[in-house]
Amino acid sequence: MSAGPSSYDYIRDGAAIYARSFATIRAEADLSGFTPEQSKIAVRIIHACGMVEVARSVAMTSDLVSKARAALQAGKPILCDSEMVAHGVTRARLPANNAVICTLRDERTPDLARQIGNTRSAAALDLWGDQIEGAVVAIGNAPTALFHLLELIDAGGPRPAAIIGMPVGFVGAAESKDALAARSDLAHVIVRGRLGGSAMAAAALNALASEAE
Amino acid sequence: MSAGPSSYDYIRDGAAIYARSFATIRAEADLSGFTPEQSKIAVRIIHACGMVEVARSVAMTSDLVSKARAALQAGKPILCDSEMVAHGVTRARLPANNAVICTLRDERTPDLARQIGNTRSAAALDLWGDQIEGAVVAIGNAPTALFHLLELIDAGGPRPAAIIGMPVGFVGAAESKDALAARSDLAHVIVRGRLGGSAMAAAALNALASEAE
Repeated sequence: MSAGPSSYDYIRDGAAIYARSFATIRAEADLSGFTPEQSKIAVRIIHACGMVEVARSVAMTSDLVSKARAALQAGKPILCDSEMVAHGVTRARLPANNAVICTLRDERTPDLARQIGNTRSAAALDLWGDQIEGAVVAIGNAPTALFHLLELIDAGGPRPAAIIGMPVGFVGAAESKDALAARSDLAHVIVRGRLGGSAMAAAALNALASEAE
Repeated sequence: MSAGPSSYDYIRDGAAIYARSFATIRAEADLSGFTPEQSKIAVRIIHACGMVEVARSVAMTSDLVSKARAALQAGKPILCDSEMVAHGVTRARLPANNAVICTLRDERTPDLARQIGNTRSAAALDLWGDQIEGAVVAIGNAPTALFHLLELIDAGGPRPAAIIGMPVGFVGAAESKDALAARSDLAHVIVRGRLGGSAMAAAALNALASEAE
């Protein structure tokens, strides 16, 4: 593993890479719309996608950071709509060894999807049950999952402490996040429009999980 | 789960969502630089990130599709730099129930990283060993992993059949992909610049794994 003549010149120290990345983001991104606490969430979302411009699409309620942090510190679970989001959560940052749950591949999910006439991503939420109460929900893939979460809440179901609403794509993503944005009764953070995805959702969760940068 | 008065109006059929998404992408994205086969890779990358503009940052060698497809059909493994990439691979699309391997969380990786003076993401590649020969490598997170892969190859190590090079971010991402782009001897697909990530890398792999859209 010695450095041969063809070695490339690059930074090989993980901590140095993080520090330089975050310094670049703070130098280039317009974070003026955020409080110092909120800006840490925005910085990690930018870090996950490589675009400082995404800052202008990030919106969060004033109670998002406090409610999500309190829930995580109280040991509440993290409920994810996709395996990618679940596997993007950095376990070492979690304050209470919180459970990270994704029911998309549960064997009951396909049947449930047929029963309720919705996608598997949406049907998977019906398996969360009472775990939703006070939890942090992280949606980074499916607009149908975010829509269905709002439907479950509107039907009188359990209420999460905070919602990371970042489904991505061309059908329903923008609309589902607009629907969440209209809900001042639900602490949330979104990335408006088509942008989003599992990396951004996991990054937001990781930022909320620990104050360390 | 009946639709109450607060139900939202959205498409709940997974196949219809896919079809409309891909139709929107093909209507909006400039795919003129790609062959029909290559455009399927670009479409799935766009689908993963929600930005049709990313098409202009996607570049691939003329042998990428044929070499990656042949490797997967021959049962070669898929080697990933992150758990998120590995969990973004759609198993049902794989032609030979291919192994999907990520060694980042192998217990030997932290020590190895200290030994070689590089990140854990880079050190994890040293555990791939001979599995690299003829494999499809998918890098969606760490520039250091892509740099280190090129170093291993330059040192006379085994050669992958194809490389999906899509590390993301602000330190080394653009440079590592430029280094790969300069290698006409290695079949590859990249997303130039800071953009990239596990979702795009997994999407490229999923597109290469099956001709079905």
